[in-house]
Amino acid sequence: MESLLIKNVLHEGVKTNIYIEGNRISAIGVPADKEASRVIEAEGKAILPAFYNTHTHAAMSLLRGYADDMPLQEWLTEWIWPFEDKMTADDVKRGTVLAAEEMVKGGTVFFSDMYFAPDKIAEAVDAAGMRAAIGVTVMENHSYAEREAKSRFIENWNDRTGRMSLTVAPHAIYTVGTERLKEAAAKARDNGLKLHIHVSETTKEVEDCIAAHGMSPVRYLDSIGFLGPDVIAAHCVYVDKEEWDILAERGVTVAHCPCSNMKLGSGRFPYELAIASGARITLGTDGASSNNNLDMREEMKFAALLAKLNGDPSLLPATEVLKWATVNGAEAFGIDAGVIAEGKLADCILLNLNDVTMRPLHNLVSNWVYSAQANVVDTVICDGKVIYG
Amino acid sequence: MESLLIKNVLHEGVKTNIYIEGNRISAIGVPADKEASRVIEAEGKAILPAFYNTHTHAAMSLLRGYADDMPLQEWLTEWIWPFEDKMTADDVKRGTVLAAEEMVKGGTVFFSDMYFAPDKIAEAVDAAGMRAAIGVTVMENHSYAEREAKSRFIENWNDRTGRMSLTVAPHAIYTVGTERLKEAAAKARDNGLKLHIHVSETTKEVEDCIAAHGMSPVRYLDSIGFLGPDVIAAHCVYVDKEEWDILAERGVTVAHCPCSNMKLGSGRFPYELAIASGARITLGTDGASSNNNLDMREEMKFAALLAKLNGDPSLLPATEVLKWATVNGAEAFGIDAGVIAEGKLADCILLNLNDVTMRPLHNLVSNWVYSAQANVVDTVICDGKVIYG
Repeated sequence: MESLLIKNVLHEGVKTNIYIEGNRISAIGVPADKEASRVIEAEGKAILPAFYNTHTHAAMSLLRGYADDMPLQEWLTEWIWPFEDKMTADDVKRGTVLAAEEMVKGGTVFFSDMYFAPDKIAEAVDAAGMRAAIGVTVMENHSYAEREAKSRFIENWNDRTGRMSLTVAPHAIYTVGTERLKEAAAKARDNGLKLHIHVSETTKEVEDCIAAHGMSPVRYLDSIGFLGPDVIAAHCVYVDKEEWDILAERGVTVAHCPCSNMKLGSGRFPYELAIASGARITLGTDGASSNNNLDMREEMKFAALLAKLNGDPSLLPATEVLKWATVNGAEAFGIDAGVIAEGKLADCILLNLNDVTMRPLHNLVSNWVYSAQANVVDTVICDGKVIYG
Repeated sequence: MESLLIKNVLHEGVKTNIYIEGNRISAIGVPADKEASRVIEAEGKAILPAFYNTHTHAAMSLLRGYADDMPLQEWLTEWIWPFEDKMTADDVKRGTVLAAEEMVKGGTVFFSDMYFAPDKIAEAVDAAGMRAAIGVTVMENHSYAEREAKSRFIENWNDRTGRMSLTVAPHAIYTVGTERLKEAAAKARDNGLKLHIHVSETTKEVEDCIAAHGMSPVRYLDSIGFLGPDVIAAHCVYVDKEEWDILAERGVTVAHCPCSNMKLGSGRFPYELAIASGARITLGTDGASSNNNLDMREEMKFAALLAKLNGDPSLLPATEVLKWATVNGAEAFGIDAGVIAEGKLADCILLNLNDVTMRPLHNLVSNWVYSAQANVVDTVICDGKVIYG
């Protein structure tokens, strides 16, 4: 079995040696001369869990900077959709390759995607050595959906790589009708796949839902039996207290995307209600066209600062938002990782402590969340393999 | 005279050669073989104006990550002030050296500082090759003020380096009394120095000011003759429409610090009113203890996204926030720079267009504001000299 020894690495304030066997952390605190297939000298570096980006559209990296600073409808209908209509499956692969490079360099080992051409996405993920949950997008009367969503559910790339799964991804309640939502949920559950959907992103979505169904989106989705511990609900900006309780009770995972919500003018995530509900909250970058990067370090800072904006500087401390970006995301997708501990899958990053943004080192996590830049990531390990550095 | 030729650099969408003589851009579009003391091959790089950080406390880089995620009063009185009380003048220099390194690497050539030990700060700025407006902090009954603020006004480092000036920096209306504020303004005006002050940062400041003076901070400062085109007012979070008109009419420069306002829970800058008033708005990082970095690229993104948060994605587009961070700051301090044009002081940065966050290149400014990280800065030129890269 391949083994990896990380020497002299800072772990929870102590310099130690960490041993990885196969794809798991087998021991923390081994002798410095322990034999290993590969040794990393990590003096001046700290080890932390890698990132799990729970909501993105990776191939939209091709649209980075293509259309900004304009009203949502104009942005979508006059710029984004016409561009996407011209994208081929090979373009999707190119975009995903670019996105994967950016994500890996910034310490992200996993992303939950929602796009088209899942086979091409899987090729890009495989080449990058990352993990991914690749969404098969379901839309009502959408040509892509017809082309792609047929019988993908049986093709589970996870069998091949151990790092990938498919998700069933009905786009949103305003693009997919009730019957198709139910059908998607049934297909996902028959095949043991997760469900990935946009929920309550804008006030318009909520108003339209109330007009059409007499209730708000979370209540509506619950009324048709859609919600459960296999659901990843992206955004959840307009969710009231009772709905947060529903999400928490059903075990739904929420993918919070602060940059996208701000840039598109969607609004502020209700941190107070979300945290109080006890629902599992994770972080996502959304696509590069509404962010415009896939930088989970920056996303943590945006979340933590937007939480505090309204007057409580103690809301969402650095240690907590780091959990949203790491272990909560891993848990949501059943990946036994997200903390640096013996027995866990070896998904981790080494940070360069000599970077000017990491000095002085009063508090590693605070520096990582509030001060660092993605470039501080020195080495990225996914599933026991060094995929960057 | 020293000269610098920047070859094959992308400038406003066109690849060109830029010639710098002494400390000014003398010509854009010169032949590639023009003789120069130094030549930079800038293929794959773009030139943009450097940053002017108009409000910071540079030496507080020593407090990066020292105290976070706690209520403002506890943070200040139990953590920040006790730490600062132990800082020596040499510590201030060490902190400023660290801050200058971070700022320069991130493309910042100037900062407007408010701290203690101005001589030590000037040494650090001189060594870094940057520009700075160094505030002599004035506080009521504060030991530092007694120690430092005596007759510094006559010592103008600008005479020596051409890159530095002193400012008179009464800390705030709640730490400096009316008479001392008037005295500071008079001293500054007698000596042709700018005034640098915190204004309307929190609701408490506004409430206390109304209780004490019967009017809000901007009105109060105006009533005592403090406001004028030589004033840099940091924060201005709680400023109403009529006050914005006063600020605009008096020619005051506002230093907006979004990360600090969010992290301390101070609140959202009133972008709508501020922009509509026509007042000059600039960007500052504030100190590293409330940010926690000095990264003006990140600060631009925070400003642009926080502006859009409440529903208007077209508010504060990338091109405009770049002006806040560059030319507006230069103009506020009378530095004839901030745009890449013939005759202007040569304060500029070269960006690495091959970085993954800069691809594809649909829109350079959008990529720089919304996607890049500080590390994309390849070369920094201040006053005609390469100070980084």
